[in-house]
Amino acid sequence: MKQSALCTDAQIDSELATLEGWRIEGGRLQKQFRFNTYLDGIRFVDRVALLAEEMNHHPDLHVTWRKVEFAVSTHSAGGITALDFELARKVQALL
Amino acid sequence: MKQSALCTDAQIDSELATLEGWRIEGGRLQKQFRFNTYLDGIRFVDRVALLAEEMNHHPDLHVTWRKVEFAVSTHSAGGITALDFELARKVQALL
Repeated sequence: MKQSALCTDAQIDSELATLEGWRIEGGRLQKQFRFNTYLDGIRFVDRVALLAEEMNHHPDLHVTWRKVEFAVSTHSAGGITALDFELARKVQALL
Repeated sequence: MKQSALCTDAQIDSELATLEGWRIEGGRLQKQFRFNTYLDGIRFVDRVALLAEEMNHHPDLHVTWRKVEFAVSTHSAGGITALDFELARKVQALL
């Protein structure tokens, strides 16, 4: 599928089936990550940020004590695209 | 004032008067920081995190593109204490 095209519901279901713990909420692809220490969570943020910058695709990261909530969508397309799932897979591979 | 005691409204007003751009919202001491680049924002998060860890007082950080929203309160006290203003002043000194 084209990265700039909105995913269909079927495409979203198919992608989600391959991604452990990810969900669509409020029109965004989301996952909550938990860490053993606060600074482990911060190091995760650093690594996600480098991926985001490389892809020029920046998620929302909500950082609290030992927890990071990740959420992304494609603003230019107004929803979820293949780019969001590509970022999710790269983030997942960091763990 | 004792760090563990809730600030009075007068104490809060007096502290806020010395802190540029900070506000109380939803029972938390908050400020929005903007950056020239996305990675400048991430470096700010890293430095705030080290302060937070040193003080064992961890804020919520909402990180989006070139913007970081900082929010803190003292959970153990159920509101704003001197510890929150101490962290805010240290964060402010990073800039």
